[in-house]
Amino acid sequence: MGPPVGGRQIARQGGGLSIDTPPWIDSVVDWQRPYVGDDDRVRLAISLARENVLRATGGPFGAAVFQAATGRLIAVGVNSVVRLQQSALHGEMLALMLAQRRLNSFTLGAHGGPGHELVSSCDPCAMCLGALLWSGVRRVVASASRDDAMDLGFDEGPVFPESYRYLEERGIEIVRGVLREEARAVLDLYRSRGGQIYGG
Amino acid sequence: MGPPVGGRQIARQGGGLSIDTPPWIDSVVDWQRPYVGDDDRVRLAISLARENVLRATGGPFGAAVFQAATGRLIAVGVNSVVRLQQSALHGEMLALMLAQRRLNSFTLGAHGGPGHELVSSCDPCAMCLGALLWSGVRRVVASASRDDAMDLGFDEGPVFPESYRYLEERGIEIVRGVLREEARAVLDLYRSRGGQIYGG
Repeated sequence: MGPPVGGRQIARQGGGLSIDTPPWIDSVVDWQRPYVGDDDRVRLAISLARENVLRATGGPFGAAVFQAATGRLIAVGVNSVVRLQQSALHGEMLALMLAQRRLNSFTLGAHGGPGHELVSSCDPCAMCLGALLWSGVRRVVASASRDDAMDLGFDEGPVFPESYRYLEERGIEIVRGVLREEARAVLDLYRSRGGQIYGG
Repeated sequence: MGPPVGGRQIARQGGGLSIDTPPWIDSVVDWQRPYVGDDDRVRLAISLARENVLRATGGPFGAAVFQAATGRLIAVGVNSVVRLQQSALHGEMLALMLAQRRLNSFTLGAHGGPGHELVSSCDPCAMCLGALLWSGVRRVVASASRDDAMDLGFDEGPVFPESYRYLEERGIEIVRGVLREEARAVLDLYRSRGGQIYGG
């Protein structure tokens, strides 16, 4: 126990952490309309990735959480590692966290509730793949591939074919490579602008 | 783009997210003294796990980030999934996030800076294993095993022997099973109190 000062403990750890999307999000995202079909949903994730590069607020990755059946947009995320100085804040993590914040629930798969899916501009890394398993989403749609990200210099971590199988065996549907060329173009844009390759 | 109201966009996503440890942390953690050796550091992680159960603030898991050479305590975390309604907020994630917040850096492995290590009361799950790869820690010490957690009913996700090798090949030292019986006793305590087994 730390020394009491004036009868109270000093909070040695310092304060907590506030997490949010960059301020430009609401000027580029249409929160009203339904997003119908994988292409429409993936295009939103890719446009978030592109805006994140153009506005210099982070890496070339975007993601969103939708109500699966209706296409209602619940939350979005963009890579925020450098902006918020947090290595865990990949686009997928931010989207999942803000979706749970919005629904005030640690699971997006509540029994009897509407099912949700995560859509990402790139194959999720090892951390994000684990996170979406705990999140309660029932479906994942990704665009650019693991190899595309690694070509750019980003590591994707220990993800193996059996990692995908592990999720599928627990009822999560995984769809990859949707509009891959469009997402890869954003990775190329990031490279052409000399974007930072952060990592452990 | 959403409809303008009074000339401004409505923030449809709602607010951001605030993350912190429970208020009792500073009454049980000694932030002043150095923690010397693995046993001492692991005992802190286990005591955090135990307090989290006894005070009913979350699952039976605790973690801490230390400066490796000096044993200086940088940050701690306890499982906060139910307390904060966030499936990603395992003890390890919270400790890593608060350590980066405290050092104001997205890497705990800055070139020329002191090296850091993560100590956990249990083998990290797939998400946390990925997160610590990105975090910049150079060493991981764990106590209870993956099997101990799964016996209790918690899934650990797609972690394979090659997952550990992947991290080790990138220079991260992994030490497992330190004071395992003491950590497992906290899992038993959680079970005996009928603690919630949350999950995706």
